[in-house]
Amino acid sequence: MSAIKVDGDEGQTVRLERAALQLDCGATLDHVELAYRTYGTLNKDKSNAILICHALTGDQHPAGINPLTDKEGWWTQVVGPGSIIDTDKYFVICSNVLGGCGGSTGPQSDKPDGSGPYGLDFPVITIADMVRAQNLLIDHLGIETLFCVLGGSMGGMQVLQWAAAHGERVFSAVPIATSARHSSQNIAFHEVGRQAILADADFEGGRYFDSGNRPRKGLAVARMAAHITYLSEAALQRKFGRNLQDRDEVTYGFDADFQIESYLRHQGMSFVERFDANSYLYITRAMDYFDIAAENGGNLAAAFKDSETRFCVMSFTSDWLFPTSESITLVRALNAAGANVSFVEIESDKGHDAFLLDEPEMHATLSGFLASAAAARGLAS
Amino acid sequence: MSAIKVDGDEGQTVRLERAALQLDCGATLDHVELAYRTYGTLNKDKSNAILICHALTGDQHPAGINPLTDKEGWWTQVVGPGSIIDTDKYFVICSNVLGGCGGSTGPQSDKPDGSGPYGLDFPVITIADMVRAQNLLIDHLGIETLFCVLGGSMGGMQVLQWAAAHGERVFSAVPIATSARHSSQNIAFHEVGRQAILADADFEGGRYFDSGNRPRKGLAVARMAAHITYLSEAALQRKFGRNLQDRDEVTYGFDADFQIESYLRHQGMSFVERFDANSYLYITRAMDYFDIAAENGGNLAAAFKDSETRFCVMSFTSDWLFPTSESITLVRALNAAGANVSFVEIESDKGHDAFLLDEPEMHATLSGFLASAAAARGLAS
Repeated sequence: MSAIKVDGDEGQTVRLERAALQLDCGATLDHVELAYRTYGTLNKDKSNAILICHALTGDQHPAGINPLTDKEGWWTQVVGPGSIIDTDKYFVICSNVLGGCGGSTGPQSDKPDGSGPYGLDFPVITIADMVRAQNLLIDHLGIETLFCVLGGSMGGMQVLQWAAAHGERVFSAVPIATSARHSSQNIAFHEVGRQAILADADFEGGRYFDSGNRPRKGLAVARMAAHITYLSEAALQRKFGRNLQDRDEVTYGFDADFQIESYLRHQGMSFVERFDANSYLYITRAMDYFDIAAENGGNLAAAFKDSETRFCVMSFTSDWLFPTSESITLVRALNAAGANVSFVEIESDKGHDAFLLDEPEMHATLSGFLASAAAARGLAS
Repeated sequence: MSAIKVDGDEGQTVRLERAALQLDCGATLDHVELAYRTYGTLNKDKSNAILICHALTGDQHPAGINPLTDKEGWWTQVVGPGSIIDTDKYFVICSNVLGGCGGSTGPQSDKPDGSGPYGLDFPVITIADMVRAQNLLIDHLGIETLFCVLGGSMGGMQVLQWAAAHGERVFSAVPIATSARHSSQNIAFHEVGRQAILADADFEGGRYFDSGNRPRKGLAVARMAAHITYLSEAALQRKFGRNLQDRDEVTYGFDADFQIESYLRHQGMSFVERFDANSYLYITRAMDYFDIAAENGGNLAAAFKDSETRFCVMSFTSDWLFPTSESITLVRALNAAGANVSFVEIESDKGHDAFLLDEPEMHATLSGFLASAAAARGLAS
């Protein structure tokens, strides 16, 4: 195993050379790099490690300052010294997913043969592949059992995959606003986003890096469509309604007359600055393919048979992307498998994005669950 | 007034030269053409006319064969000889909306100065403008009072506009799966569609007719995104689920592995064959601008003050584009205005598109309402 390359306080890049990574699609990646960040200190027993799994467009910076954007991390509501996921108490790990564009191996990476970046030659990856790579990282860090694996949305899919495939390493698991399989409607929205990217003349078959162009417009449209699904109708009505943007009357044109239009355009344009179009294709595809039951003969409970992991499942009332019904299906399967599971549906009008926002009930639930699990793990202070 | 130009059994095109049309945006259209179709016979009293208003991508062919596609009209479930809207009894009129691409004046039309099609030089129109043009058509046909104005979705917006602006000409009105104002979320989805079209390199500032190219990919993406909103999650799950398309296993690629992807791609591609991208921009904008209350000082009830029109409002339980809450807001306003209104929320898992589909409860409601209104109008057989 190679030495850890330290890139400074803001994060580390580790090259996992010990093992080639065999992917679900049949291909092998010989050199997997995962860009990751840690917070806090691993205790002597190595029993206080928490792995946070990020969502589709997230990264390895849940807390602190993101060096790329100079903005706060995406989960500072929850992670930090003295916070709910207390970095004074826990050793917190977060890695950019395989296929991502935050420094981990993905379509932006150079091919081993020296012929430049992969682009669409990158093999299609799955949520299980992402977790396999994280598993190598946990080996690398010398941790046998993770105290907790948690995350929302696609992060929650990784949590479930961890519990299903590597349950012996997962003391507790918190899948939030997620599902054990991607729904037809969600595949549909992803397909719209992909077609928007593929329709962009600057996409150039995924080799836009050759010309230095980027499929900015297509990726922005993909983000705009997706962003609507992250919010609830009620939240949109409350935040924007039919309010006009810096004008008293409509202009009878195609400018952003309405605040919601201006907001969406801004979301699209700023996303393009921080995200890679090919990664967007690969990661959405990994989510589409996710279906734990299918990998267990259609029996979701079988995936969690004899699980000793403690689960805390959370959903939000206004989340229509990963509605509560998906969590209930999951909880029923966990119960059928005899697993230790608690489930909370949180009243919120903020839609899917609620897991990233100030949601006191979610925070209280997470806090209580972690305290109880910590006591069971012998971590109580 | 010019003579009616008859194009054959399948439809007629009338040129309304009598009056220039003054639009909400301030511009004037000197020569408005509306392509329309009629079914049945106008009675001696001219008291049996029904105006059907079509939705965003509809046309003037609700019944019979559409000569453009050679397929059945879009509302043959409801309109025809002996059917619910019985063309043996009623004189049914349906016109392509102003701004449309089915033969009525729109961005595809030639400018009066002979410099070719309007493209984006066409003035931005509103639902009220569409109804103003229809109003001229009804004048032209020599009809004083319409027995009924009905339609779903954007068709329902026109129904409400008819009742609000020309109530004295509307004996009864059936707004289905609609709203008195376009919601923030709906504006957001429209904006995504427009940005997809504008992002297409073949759009050429709306002058794609010069090169003979068309923004096919952008328009297809717009349609795909919109199409998802027309269906419910339950309907997608029931129809497609995670079923694969003509294959036993996923291909680990970006082909249409899933049936839902294949279906959406087909919807996008076939839509491009029959619809014009500029019209899509204009008509979505008209819907966005629709807000009857705003035009009455924020008081929706005021728009229907002293209305003598009989209303039948219908919504569908699984319609999340125009949810029942929108209909309830409307019904409350109509009640506050002292209007004669009945309201039915129909149990259906088919989403917004339910109004176009086989929905016995909707058909029974419509049937009963028309029979009662016909009796009141002295039309009973």
